[in-house]
Amino acid sequence: MTTQTADHTHIRATNLAAVLGYLRREAPCSRAAIATGTGLNKATVTSIVGDLLDRRLVRETQQTQNHVGRPATLLVLDGSAYATIGLEVSARGLIALSCDTAGGQVLRWHRAGPGVDAGPAKTIAALAALARRAVTAVQSSGRQVLGITVGVPGLVNRDGAVVLAAGLGWRDVPMRAELAAAIGRPDIPVTVDNDASLGVLAEHLYGPQAGTANLIRLTGDTGVGAGIIADGKPLEGHLGYVGEIGHLRLVPDGPRCGCGRRGCLEALASLPSILARTDGRTDSDPQLQLEDLIRRADAQEIAVTQVLAEAGTYLGQGIAALVNVLNPEVVLLGGAYALLADHLTPAIDKALREATIAPDAGGCTVLASTLPDTATPLGATAQALTPLTRGHLPTR
Amino acid sequence: MTTQTADHTHIRATNLAAVLGYLRREAPCSRAAIATGTGLNKATVTSIVGDLLDRRLVRETQQTQNHVGRPATLLVLDGSAYATIGLEVSARGLIALSCDTAGGQVLRWHRAGPGVDAGPAKTIAALAALARRAVTAVQSSGRQVLGITVGVPGLVNRDGAVVLAAGLGWRDVPMRAELAAAIGRPDIPVTVDNDASLGVLAEHLYGPQAGTANLIRLTGDTGVGAGIIADGKPLEGHLGYVGEIGHLRLVPDGPRCGCGRRGCLEALASLPSILARTDGRTDSDPQLQLEDLIRRADAQEIAVTQVLAEAGTYLGQGIAALVNVLNPEVVLLGGAYALLADHLTPAIDKALREATIAPDAGGCTVLASTLPDTATPLGATAQALTPLTRGHLPTR
Repeated sequence: MTTQTADHTHIRATNLAAVLGYLRREAPCSRAAIATGTGLNKATVTSIVGDLLDRRLVRETQQTQNHVGRPATLLVLDGSAYATIGLEVSARGLIALSCDTAGGQVLRWHRAGPGVDAGPAKTIAALAALARRAVTAVQSSGRQVLGITVGVPGLVNRDGAVVLAAGLGWRDVPMRAELAAAIGRPDIPVTVDNDASLGVLAEHLYGPQAGTANLIRLTGDTGVGAGIIADGKPLEGHLGYVGEIGHLRLVPDGPRCGCGRRGCLEALASLPSILARTDGRTDSDPQLQLEDLIRRADAQEIAVTQVLAEAGTYLGQGIAALVNVLNPEVVLLGGAYALLADHLTPAIDKALREATIAPDAGGCTVLASTLPDTATPLGATAQALTPLTRGHLPTR
Repeated sequence: MTTQTADHTHIRATNLAAVLGYLRREAPCSRAAIATGTGLNKATVTSIVGDLLDRRLVRETQQTQNHVGRPATLLVLDGSAYATIGLEVSARGLIALSCDTAGGQVLRWHRAGPGVDAGPAKTIAALAALARRAVTAVQSSGRQVLGITVGVPGLVNRDGAVVLAAGLGWRDVPMRAELAAAIGRPDIPVTVDNDASLGVLAEHLYGPQAGTANLIRLTGDTGVGAGIIADGKPLEGHLGYVGEIGHLRLVPDGPRCGCGRRGCLEALASLPSILARTDGRTDSDPQLQLEDLIRRADAQEIAVTQVLAEAGTYLGQGIAALVNVLNPEVVLLGGAYALLADHLTPAIDKALREATIAPDAGGCTVLASTLPDTATPLGATAQALTPLTRGHLPTR
């Protein structure tokens, strides 16, 4: 009997997830269209939609459909009752983003952050303060916060501990536990994930390449990491430590990397390593340093364009290693790489084609992300919504 | 109405696949156990089992179960009616293996093959002759051949053409079409796949690591390639060109590789490159060369053990690149690497731990395959069975 009940709950959740997923892709749409699109029978759809209306996750509109017959009442996602919060920690600062359950942006804040050298305790304290203010702001909008997810540039284990974040100099930080305690809201689930994995999740859900079954997103704002969608799903691996292309050794006895090794891709082509070699202004604000770098690159300053071409070659070699192993259709350049794409891409393409065994780089295209700065926190808002997208309704 | 029918057929196939899958893992078992294990209702299971009995894919035994109550009639897989044929092309020769639908081996043949330098036309002719003899032998055993799958050490596209097999010197060979024509049995489907992908499929289904969700199998008998199971499924990628770790450049300006580049893992650590550097007997039969190499290594001949330790270091670096990106739980050494594992593993483990960013190599263990020589053809027999394992009954 227990099995029977468990199965029924499971089937209900699966069906609810299918209805919500269809609405996310196709709304506005009618109940009949949902039934056809999901293969569920109309009574089931009507019952599920009833639950969703009841929870203000869906609302009816009086829009009419653009075809023959009497106008149907159409359904759209309702974002008025719930939202999630996505956070990002990087060398460029802290970001908080909140989206409601209809995908509407509730808030988006950027903070300079305590600096890369501040250490985990200060960073977690600053992040918790930002998160608390975000929770207050979301609640003031009349919405309940369903969850908070943080993206961190490093290895994150299944408990949300940061095992290693070489670019931040962190090791064995029980981040989820400490952040949750500092936020002090045990009713709001807090999760921690790798920044690149969250970034590619956002691209896969919301970007122009949404739905691309084999998609990689590369970022190098702190360390160099790849988020991977393989055969339609976020790649997870045995313990969650995937996409760590930053420590591929490209130059034996090359420059020292934050991980302690030499000649890693990260030591040759991350944004911090590019900034260190372009000898620019040494403002404490990394955002200003990046803007200065872009300005000098756009002005064709030779000391800068040479360093970027070199970095592009190394990135192309790193991407080739990913392409040889994973055969993606698209590799997106995220973060600062997207903003520098015009200067990086020619060298990337050349090196990629030289180092890929499959003809024409296995059909892979390298593109600048259209979500250069928001993919990680946006992916974090989606990740925090996981229980709902799996069909589990919020408890009130 | 068509949709409705298609859906019913689809549901029937899905359920049939679930029943067959359960039987493959759990047989002997009762109808009631299948119902409980698959979550299908008993009437559905009884109806599906009826079809399977009718096609001689399942048979009843009078075995009794080892618990209280009246003895149930148990079901086991029946291999008496159908079999598939798996073939492998490698620098070590040609292999044909046939397994029936109960997993029983019908035949296993090894042929020296026409040699690596023979070119695709001669190899395909030799393979077709082998396949035809295998079909005759399988039919003589009273079984119908459901399909033939060939594993090739190279990039294979979705049409079964070999785009590139550097270790064989092949490029753009329409292998599936030519082999099917040469076999001359249009009633038997022929498919072509990458050897490493088939090898890891066999390990995932039948080896001691069966079911390991993140599993890699590395072979280097011709080129160096990795078969990848990621998050429980064979990795496919955009066009099927995955696991090509052999062309990771480890030594800038290193030895020339069959692909035209320099310093690739394949040029440093494939079996042919190891044989070339150990200066052994130059028999035309690669099998004898390998046996000689193993004998000299086991005798601790310094010229051989040094080359193997060096190759092990390169293999460890290549495996580290896979581990950093994919975070597997187990990496299996297949083919000749399995037979040489005692000599390779210490250097592999050391290099892997040095070059992996996650602590303890991300929880990865490197082991010798227990199916060193048969994984690819065994995976090929499983691949040829795909329509049935997806729930589509053979047509008679």
